[in-house]
Amino acid sequence: MSNIKTKFINDPENITSELLEGYVLAYRDYVKLAGENIVVRVKPKKEGQVAIVTLGGSGHEPALSGFVGRGMLDCSVVGDVFAAPGAQRVFQALQLMKCEAGILLVVLNHSGDVMSANMACQLAERTGIKVKQLLVHDDISAGINAPADNRRGLSGCVPLFKILGAASEEGKSLDELLEIGTRYTNKVATLAVAMRSCTHPQNGAVISDLPEGIMEIGMGQHGEGGGGQKPLVSADDTAVEMVDLLCKQLKPAVGDKVMLIINGVGSTTHMELNIVFRKAYKELEERGFQVVFSRIQEILTVQEQAGFQMIMALPDEDHIDYLDNKPAEAPYWTAFGK
Amino acid sequence: MSNIKTKFINDPENITSELLEGYVLAYRDYVKLAGENIVVRVKPKKEGQVAIVTLGGSGHEPALSGFVGRGMLDCSVVGDVFAAPGAQRVFQALQLMKCEAGILLVVLNHSGDVMSANMACQLAERTGIKVKQLLVHDDISAGINAPADNRRGLSGCVPLFKILGAASEEGKSLDELLEIGTRYTNKVATLAVAMRSCTHPQNGAVISDLPEGIMEIGMGQHGEGGGGQKPLVSADDTAVEMVDLLCKQLKPAVGDKVMLIINGVGSTTHMELNIVFRKAYKELEERGFQVVFSRIQEILTVQEQAGFQMIMALPDEDHIDYLDNKPAEAPYWTAFGK
Repeated sequence: MSNIKTKFINDPENITSELLEGYVLAYRDYVKLAGENIVVRVKPKKEGQVAIVTLGGSGHEPALSGFVGRGMLDCSVVGDVFAAPGAQRVFQALQLMKCEAGILLVVLNHSGDVMSANMACQLAERTGIKVKQLLVHDDISAGINAPADNRRGLSGCVPLFKILGAASEEGKSLDELLEIGTRYTNKVATLAVAMRSCTHPQNGAVISDLPEGIMEIGMGQHGEGGGGQKPLVSADDTAVEMVDLLCKQLKPAVGDKVMLIINGVGSTTHMELNIVFRKAYKELEERGFQVVFSRIQEILTVQEQAGFQMIMALPDEDHIDYLDNKPAEAPYWTAFGK
Repeated sequence: MSNIKTKFINDPENITSELLEGYVLAYRDYVKLAGENIVVRVKPKKEGQVAIVTLGGSGHEPALSGFVGRGMLDCSVVGDVFAAPGAQRVFQALQLMKCEAGILLVVLNHSGDVMSANMACQLAERTGIKVKQLLVHDDISAGINAPADNRRGLSGCVPLFKILGAASEEGKSLDELLEIGTRYTNKVATLAVAMRSCTHPQNGAVISDLPEGIMEIGMGQHGEGGGGQKPLVSADDTAVEMVDLLCKQLKPAVGDKVMLIINGVGSTTHMELNIVFRKAYKELEERGFQVVFSRIQEILTVQEQAGFQMIMALPDEDHIDYLDNKPAEAPYWTAFGK
């Protein structure tokens, strides 16, 4: 057994393969493994539709493979814990997903993922696979109006999977999807806060150091530094500060329609997530904005870290339609639509 | 602000009302408050169908109110953190849910909940409300074949909400629903394991004392004692031990169809839940049973406790049909059915 004293695991080397095996057994009507650490839909989408593919390390479950399914992702390429999957595996997935309509590869802006994606796309293009990339850089902890390249990808990718999945099922072309997705990535912002750290499941190391009673707004999803540590304040004060920063980035106008999602990162209770959502919602309404799509869920976790990510977007009518009115049937995001 | 140094809350006295307010704002197309701490569907079910109602303390989110919706619960009566809601509030909910077809009140076997339910049902019957109770006592930590009265209600109630919700939407009578539900409660067993304790959100007290590297199989969902503390073993060994105990209670025969759900209680990672599921599934298949319905989800939490509950049932064809083939549209359990 493992020497990690706080985790139900077996051999730390096998974590990713074992968790994926468990996942596809539990949801075998929806997902299957099509190669090592490559998760795909059991029932592929129709011929002639663009495939939506993403990649990223494990350890953030249910992200990203939890969103493979009808109306969301077609394929998730999984790396080891907090690690990029590598170009060869991404290339293998692109070969599997090859189709006439093409592939849209959604990449969260982390250096390993970007490098894997770039190399895989080069290999793919050489073999005649039609593929384009869409980069997610929703984290605003690098500062308001920081260049997109400096902004990491956070859980704002998950509603994007919903939008792209729905649009691709409708038969939108690769260029149309890239345009719809780019419009969203330009209008989404996410901010994280942590107050109790997590343990790396493979070596037992505590990922970052947060003393009791201290929180850090802006901490990244692998423990990367954020906006500095400070004493924990109430749920309401935290929510207002985060809404304020997100609004500074997105600059909504009175009357604008807003998407608001609270993502739990591992061990902040659903109770707290609800309380934070309540204040964030009220704050947005008081500022004259209209919350038109919302969700409270652990969509992308950071092991057993306490904290959450607040995702805000200014979706246009297209995006609202894809988010709210279209069906999705992935293990961790199922919706009837309207 | 609160003096609880590890929670995003405001005034500890207002936790329940604030979290419910946040919840119904986030999912306002699905749920609303019909009275203080009474959560109901926005679109009530058709006339002539039995209403399914449950009750229980807050602090276990998304349970129980997360399962109010089409094909699941019609009403959830919420108490304060880890506390029964009291007879008057349950009675108020029964008055709101009054209908010709009657009300089935699902009660988890905890003394406060049972007392609140009994008194409320007495008051209801005096005013001509047709109501029957169904007790859930799935926890096997009191020992294999312990009398049902000694067994607490755990997360095995959630698939029951799915079964009863689907059957009631079909127009089954109150007596039929009681029979369908009783058949399930006689064939479900749940076992919990904890390895890191949680903090009470109102007074900051640590609910139970579990040193690092120690786990307790059988710990109840308010920190009640289980089967004694012992050193943590691997995910696989834990899974096999729990499957074995659950099989001793349920006594499946070779070829039997089994429901297997892993419920995360707060801060055990989804990664670990997947790894545990994997071994439990394989162990059941090796013993000659057939896993026909499964799920890995935080359906009933115990604040930020680390651990999980393993829910096993021997559903009959009716139950499988209601679980798998019928739609549900509650914020934390959405399914298309087949």
